[in-house]
Amino acid sequence: MQSSPLLEHLIENLRCLPGVGSKSAQRMAYHLLQRNRSGGMNLARALTEAMSKIGHCSHCRNFTEEDVCNICNNPRRQNSGLLCVVEMPADIQAIEQTGQFSGRYFVLMGHLSPLDGIGPREIGLDLLQKRLIEESFHEVILATNPTVEGDATANYIAEICRQHNIKVSRIAHGIPVGGELETVDGTTLTHSFLGRRQID
Amino acid sequence: MQSSPLLEHLIENLRCLPGVGSKSAQRMAYHLLQRNRSGGMNLARALTEAMSKIGHCSHCRNFTEEDVCNICNNPRRQNSGLLCVVEMPADIQAIEQTGQFSGRYFVLMGHLSPLDGIGPREIGLDLLQKRLIEESFHEVILATNPTVEGDATANYIAEICRQHNIKVSRIAHGIPVGGELETVDGTTLTHSFLGRRQID
Ligand SMILES: [Zn+2]
Ligand SMILES: [Zn+2]
Repeated sequence: MQSSPLLEHLIENLRCLPGVGSKSAQRMAYHLLQRNRSGGMNLARALTEAMSKIGHCSHCRNFTEEDVCNICNNPRRQNSGLLCVVEMPADIQAIEQTGQFSGRYFVLMGHLSPLDGIGPREIGLDLLQKRLIEESFHEVILATNPTVEGDATANYIAEICRQHNIKVSRIAHGIPVGGELETVDGTTLTHSFLGRRQID
Repeated sequence: MQSSPLLEHLIENLRCLPGVGSKSAQRMAYHLLQRNRSGGMNLARALTEAMSKIGHCSHCRNFTEEDVCNICNNPRRQNSGLLCVVEMPADIQAIEQTGQFSGRYFVLMGHLSPLDGIGPREIGLDLLQKRLIEESFHEVILATNPTVEGDATANYIAEICRQHNIKVSRIAHGIPVGGELETVDGTTLTHSFLGRRQID
């Protein structure tokens, strides 16, 4: 029995966060009420602002509250001639944290899935094609997920790139660095054999 | 590099939740933006309401948005004659989930800590004393934490109860059920010996 319906309601709503079960939701609600109400109010404002104002970049479809995002607007990245295609904005986040890629992105917001009515237009390939024509990319790097759908989507986009005579590549799949061969699944191991490189 | 300052701000603010580091905060922010914006908006509203409207019960100091909380207002609990004293509202939550206690509570919102200027008045003992006089409790159960401060606070309240000729007890401390003797710390083990009970 909760002493307060508003507290009960807060605990319920905290469970929309990934990885938060009823125990953690309770802990979070009590923590904020007991120790950090201003933090809770700030979080509420940050949520409202983000959920209502963040849209998609008109160039790359990444999250932004502007018309064009920081990454697309960066002249150094514009001059790199590289375009990396990913499924979701969170993938950009992961790639950015490696610090190894200095080009621009294109976010599909999903992958081809004809049975669910998700075709080329739904994943923004008309916009991608427009960019391939109007801008001069040296290379398109396909970083969709190593799944059946991700591979199919990558193949589809590779074909478009070939039609526009643009070099296209797929990121390597194989054994994670630091991983042990015997613990890796068969599909990954197969990829890692197919993707082997000669040692000079 | 984040594509969006509002997204960055949201990730930062999610870290005010206990147990949420920068990785989980990122995951949460992207999850809400990518899949559940209405959930994010509902959470923002629930946070604002809870942080701004939840106060303390005028009888027991537990969290409530009313003058008197559900638990204090429950006639069955009023008739039990039992009063359980805890340090924080989250402790009530834990006790309620056992389903074993059907009395009322009193929340200290802390414990005695003279060096920090937290004396009897700061933990509401004037209000507690008023209740002990005006209501007829059969027994006061002291469920403060088994720490030096929690024990000192329990002793202080026990003395007040004795002055009012009210039976007073302390919850048992010992080896957790299912715990292994050899993994339990010395203080707990000492408590468990001191609190031993004769087998009939
Ligand atoms: Zn962009
Ligand atoms: Zn109450």
